[in-house]
Amino acid sequence: MDIIRSVKDMQQLIIDQKRKGKKIGFVPTMGFLHEGHEKLIQNARENNDIVVISIFVNPLQFGPNEDFERYPRDEEHDKLISENNHVDFLFIPTVEAMYPSELAIAMDLTKRVDVLCGRTREGHFSGVVTVLAKLFNIVLPDNVYFGMKDAQQIAVVDSLINDLNYPIQLNPVPTVRESDGLAKSSRNVYLQEQERKVAPSIFQALQFGQKMVIDGEKNPVIIVKEVENFILQQTTGKIDYVEILSYPELTPVQTINQQVILATAVHFKNARLIDNIVIDHTGLISKRI
Amino acid sequence: MDIIRSVKDMQQLIIDQKRKGKKIGFVPTMGFLHEGHEKLIQNARENNDIVVISIFVNPLQFGPNEDFERYPRDEEHDKLISENNHVDFLFIPTVEAMYPSELAIAMDLTKRVDVLCGRTREGHFSGVVTVLAKLFNIVLPDNVYFGMKDAQQIAVVDSLINDLNYPIQLNPVPTVRESDGLAKSSRNVYLQEQERKVAPSIFQALQFGQKMVIDGEKNPVIIVKEVENFILQQTTGKIDYVEILSYPELTPVQTINQQVILATAVHFKNARLIDNIVIDHTGLISKRI
Repeated sequence: MDIIRSVKDMQQLIIDQKRKGKKIGFVPTMGFLHEGHEKLIQNARENNDIVVISIFVNPLQFGPNEDFERYPRDEEHDKLISENNHVDFLFIPTVEAMYPSELAIAMDLTKRVDVLCGRTREGHFSGVVTVLAKLFNIVLPDNVYFGMKDAQQIAVVDSLINDLNYPIQLNPVPTVRESDGLAKSSRNVYLQEQERKVAPSIFQALQFGQKMVIDGEKNPVIIVKEVENFILQQTTGKIDYVEILSYPELTPVQTINQQVILATAVHFKNARLIDNIVIDHTGLISKRI
Repeated sequence: MDIIRSVKDMQQLIIDQKRKGKKIGFVPTMGFLHEGHEKLIQNARENNDIVVISIFVNPLQFGPNEDFERYPRDEEHDKLISENNHVDFLFIPTVEAMYPSELAIAMDLTKRVDVLCGRTREGHFSGVVTVLAKLFNIVLPDNVYFGMKDAQQIAVVDSLINDLNYPIQLNPVPTVRESDGLAKSSRNVYLQEQERKVAPSIFQALQFGQKMVIDGEKNPVIIVKEVENFILQQTTGKIDYVEILSYPELTPVQTINQQVILATAVHFKNARLIDNIVIDHTGLISKRI
């Protein structure tokens, strides 16, 4: 495994590989790798000749009151995980390498962002698409892999790829969970002991909502209310949102007669956790985006 | 020469060529090709294995009161010119192919645009970078070629490529002129007979300004004033702007002690003509951007 820190070196190494006809699989991450990331890497490994993962905590996608500075980092651990999962190139650029000067190009989003996490995390997805537009041009992947836990991010990346015609296949990968159902997340380390105990109720609440759809409930307002009640009763967290929207368009639905996302964000003392399920109109888990 | 109208076909043809190690040269145009475009194609032909030219009158870069509808078009002529200049792929997408649905990604510029043509053509350069971001991802060029007549466009493309890390070399090509000095432009056909006779004075005025720098004048305010007077005396046109700015940064200069652009736009009855020269601090024409 090669560790690359220079943008130009990374780009040139990939260009050389592509000239040889190699297929490139790319997993962009913010590091502090867990089993969710490993699943992404394994998917990339199975379907590409060369696997690249990037570790870059992107300042552009953090708000002024968010956790950029204290976002967990552990480069040695990440190297080990990458090596164990047979990554070819580990790309770890500095902030200065990615943003050598103030950008003249501003990328913004007019769809899929004024809902869910985009509602409170102003500018977050603009930062996400900007860094991904750059990373896609540096790593030139044939396939990119993102976890469904960040379902809104996947919807936004879908827009980026389609709107700007990137020659890239987007591969959403199902959320990896702890044995008790809690979605794997780098931010889980922030949970206090008691919070960690009740956190699996978030996924249980989503499953409860899914069961309502399977049992014939089509009204999103009623389901959202029940899911909120479940979370409030079972956890000590404060609900940021529970929403049901079309997916991946992320527009409001009056009745569940198409593929939808049931998503939630819950604040604990030092961690804001998100989770979701994407289901078809019968309540079954969707495989496609 | 192959004529391609589908975005997916164009992208796949290029991916196949790149897998064979071919170097791609790309000339994006709005068609109605003239000797200026031919010069770009010839530059591309000399330095690449595959030459692609696109013809696309991009609605996104025209303002509501601009000439999108009446912009001159002549596909048969363009095919002939392309064939004669040994183009490999002529890419002519429809508006629907390029913009199948309303974009979710909005690209904007925060530098290099509030001057020169960007001052009056609001949104013009946002439209330019958006369509080029798409075309670059469809044609995947190693080299792109733009004419120096559109010097601000080159400065903006330089930002696009650098800010978003496109693996593309930008090649500015000197402006091609009629024998009397008028810069070649698709819009010259709009000139009335009398206007056409005086139009070469635009370039003469710029050369007059250049001569002042060579003779030691360093004050941009004085030079701009003299160039304006020259244009007003020698033509029937209405001056949109005469400006001297650093190049390619396009920031104001107090004194000419670096590479600058001396640029002008002049309105005639049915045509707005632009021209410029880029000179170093001694007044000599610059070769680099």
